[in-house]
Amino acid sequence: MSETIFTKIIAGEIPCHRVYEDEHVLAFLDIGPLAEGHTLVIPKEPAPTLDRLSDEASAAIGRVLPRICRAVMKATGAEASNVLQNNGAMAGQEVMHVHFHVIPKTASGGLQKQWTPGAFDHEAGAKLAERIRGSID
Amino acid sequence: MSETIFTKIIAGEIPCHRVYEDEHVLAFLDIGPLAEGHTLVIPKEPAPTLDRLSDEASAAIGRVLPRICRAVMKATGAEASNVLQNNGAMAGQEVMHVHFHVIPKTASGGLQKQWTPGAFDHEAGAKLAERIRGSID
Repeated sequence: MSETIFTKIIAGEIPCHRVYEDEHVLAFLDIGPLAEGHTLVIPKEPAPTLDRLSDEASAAIGRVLPRICRAVMKATGAEASNVLQNNGAMAGQEVMHVHFHVIPKTASGGLQKQWTPGAFDHEAGAKLAERIRGSID
Repeated sequence: MSETIFTKIIAGEIPCHRVYEDEHVLAFLDIGPLAEGHTLVIPKEPAPTLDRLSDEASAAIGRVLPRICRAVMKATGAEASNVLQNNGAMAGQEVMHVHFHVIPKTASGGLQKQWTPGAFDHEAGAKLAERIRGSID
């Protein structure tokens, strides 16, 4: 695995504003925040994207997300939030180490997104679901 | 807990294009897709938002996300993806049952977002991180 700024933060070579840590997970403030309290939750296991992360490391992240969401919301007073995890440069990933953004959403701040759903064809959908089911390893 | 379309899908009262299921988790195609293969991953435990989901149910979701990402990418050929989970109507949540979107990202499709980070003050950040740390339950 190549070194990233996050592996250096995990190793303590670069400082961070830590909000949570356990054996498998580190969480700290994003220094390019979309809103006050924007937090990054990362696995200590180095994997560039979620599809290459171990089940165990990903479960450890999942386990702490509710607690971190609650703490971020309590500390900032935000009543809504978005959790976002980008895989690949085309998807907006900048550091090639898995990270989940916990981003408080307020009237003036937070994640801005467009949501323009396409049409859904049930016959094609049934075939696609079968292909995805058959691809689960 | 109030009933939602997702509790009815879990109960089998409304059909879905299922791609994965285990004791704790159900995944199926979003019928308002942002891209081909847009999949929803939901806990069987009914909780409106992630901050109200149990650690165990959230860990079960985390555990299967890598497998589902891989399968969606393999079946669609997408090389990038976004995982998004919205908490609260202000954050764009429409069904009040926790759901993680797995959205393939391609040149023409997928999640569209703006990313305009604000300034970060390290002194205020240190105090905020301390408040969040102190709010972890």
